[in-house]
Amino acid sequence: MVRVPYDDLYAKLREAMLRLGMADERAAVCARLFAETTRDGVYTHGLNRFPRFAAQVGNGTVDVNAEPTKVAGFGGLERWDGHSGVGNLNALACMGRAIALAKEHGIGAVALANTNHWMRGGTYGWQAAEQGLFAICWTNTLANLPAWGAATPTLGNNPLVIAVPRMDGHIVLDMAMSQFSYGSLAAYSKREQLLPVDGGFDTTGNLTRDAAAIEASQRALPVGYWKGSGLALVLDMVGAMLSGGHATYQIPRESTRETGLSQILLAIDPSAVASAYELTKTADGIVGSLREATPVDPAKPVRYPGEETLRLREENLRLGVPVDPEIWKQISDPSAQ
Amino acid sequence: MVRVPYDDLYAKLREAMLRLGMADERAAVCARLFAETTRDGVYTHGLNRFPRFAAQVGNGTVDVNAEPTKVAGFGGLERWDGHSGVGNLNALACMGRAIALAKEHGIGAVALANTNHWMRGGTYGWQAAEQGLFAICWTNTLANLPAWGAATPTLGNNPLVIAVPRMDGHIVLDMAMSQFSYGSLAAYSKREQLLPVDGGFDTTGNLTRDAAAIEASQRALPVGYWKGSGLALVLDMVGAMLSGGHATYQIPRESTRETGLSQILLAIDPSAVASAYELTKTADGIVGSLREATPVDPAKPVRYPGEETLRLREENLRLGVPVDPEIWKQISDPSAQ
Repeated sequence: MVRVPYDDLYAKLREAMLRLGMADERAAVCARLFAETTRDGVYTHGLNRFPRFAAQVGNGTVDVNAEPTKVAGFGGLERWDGHSGVGNLNALACMGRAIALAKEHGIGAVALANTNHWMRGGTYGWQAAEQGLFAICWTNTLANLPAWGAATPTLGNNPLVIAVPRMDGHIVLDMAMSQFSYGSLAAYSKREQLLPVDGGFDTTGNLTRDAAAIEASQRALPVGYWKGSGLALVLDMVGAMLSGGHATYQIPRESTRETGLSQILLAIDPSAVASAYELTKTADGIVGSLREATPVDPAKPVRYPGEETLRLREENLRLGVPVDPEIWKQISDPSAQ
Repeated sequence: MVRVPYDDLYAKLREAMLRLGMADERAAVCARLFAETTRDGVYTHGLNRFPRFAAQVGNGTVDVNAEPTKVAGFGGLERWDGHSGVGNLNALACMGRAIALAKEHGIGAVALANTNHWMRGGTYGWQAAEQGLFAICWTNTLANLPAWGAATPTLGNNPLVIAVPRMDGHIVLDMAMSQFSYGSLAAYSKREQLLPVDGGFDTTGNLTRDAAAIEASQRALPVGYWKGSGLALVLDMVGAMLSGGHATYQIPRESTRETGLSQILLAIDPSAVASAYELTKTADGIVGSLREATPVDPAKPVRYPGEETLRLREENLRLGVPVDPEIWKQISDPSAQ
């Protein structure tokens, strides 16, 4: 691991996007989203995801210059088509539209079909929270999670994002419906380290903390067993039905061919019903009550979702953003592409 | 356990509501919601909950004839005050209002403050689905769940409901943020039966399937460990901030005094952007793909949330609704009240 200044990371990513054929302004925004994700400590979905993204552009799965268009709408609800464009740019545009709808109608939602991997889901939560709005959004994914009681993956891990705007640090929950991602399982099995809690089944059908055994069985565990399984299913249904796009079972199973995703971007503007003073007071009261909880380990105070993000963001801006040397070399040296 | 005809269950509950001082029409609706909950197999939140409900009326926590009123609104977003009224009647009225808002604006939400326990959360999901709408709703509760890393309960188990309308059977997810309710833990420990999966910590801080040990530690497990903990927190925040009502930490900790709850009732009208034909096709495709999953146990096909409800509803209407003989005797015999 090496650390590089944020501005260098952004600049190299921008050049890389331009080399992929992305138009100038789009390249700048797309590079910023990738760079911010790494800056915020979500290493799996920033720079480290670039090689797969480039492969998806190369094989035609992602159309770098396609822009989303509105298909239908009524009041605060709209349906958009992503035209196989860049996943993070599509989601950013559609959350932007949901925010505009919420400002006009109090609450607004865009159902987006035919889009690509949105990279870090939290991005669109932060986007709304920065403007003082609540956000609820989710995406479906390729099938990578067995439904409860099933031996084969039929559900996506369908990340769900809920963002709460707050003066002293937004609260942004970004959770996939699998207890651990396959990326995370790979990291544990490489380190030959046990998972902190059960993460799936081994090939004999027993719950296990052995990541390699779960990689072998391909039976990762939904969060809360039958509960996360049900939640993943209904998120897929709402997304596909409202957007008119594909459901998980229709999405290509190969990671570099994963496309045709369906997403929901929903925003709520609290300023329509509450004062900033009241919102701050309520939010701070809740965070304060969390701080007063007795921690199991006195050295580890209880944290809210997004709190670690703010700490890592500050640290990475100060010390430089950690990058994988191999991938950093690839995007720094165009001839290696 | 004895079985009684649905109509008898409803009639006795209605009489019981009238004896509590509830006005005629309200008693009929409230009794129907309790009776339907038991009919649908959610025994913990129907008739069996009546004694606690009656106690809450008796001690002044629930005002049987208070009606919710609108406090503020803008477009599809409204804030209502439940005036400590009957929890299920308040939630039914506010989901009804959210449905009306969704029909007018495509999407609508009511944030309800100062209300009481809504009994079965799924009720309001079924309510929207019966009218062809999607629903997302949740409530906060008294603190009964330690945040991840905390030794003391600071979070509510904040049930989340997501409903998907579907011609051949609505899909209704109704999940609390604790892996098992304390009611469920009590049932396991009474039967001296191990939980099917870890349900919390014992007093020495180890994860356990021993329900009695969890009752002793009061450290139930959030679904998905840190994930459900984060989800419970943000649901509480959105509910309290949007409604202007209380957060979990402000709610009395004694179950018969639990009041001042905050709830979100959100509805989406898909007819604004999609045809009934398209919606049916998409929903049936997803349910079909679930049916095609290879089950772990060939005798147990994979089910969707709400599927068991429909089966139990049919069975209980046919054979009679199972009731607890003791509680049934109490409400059948007014002099015993």
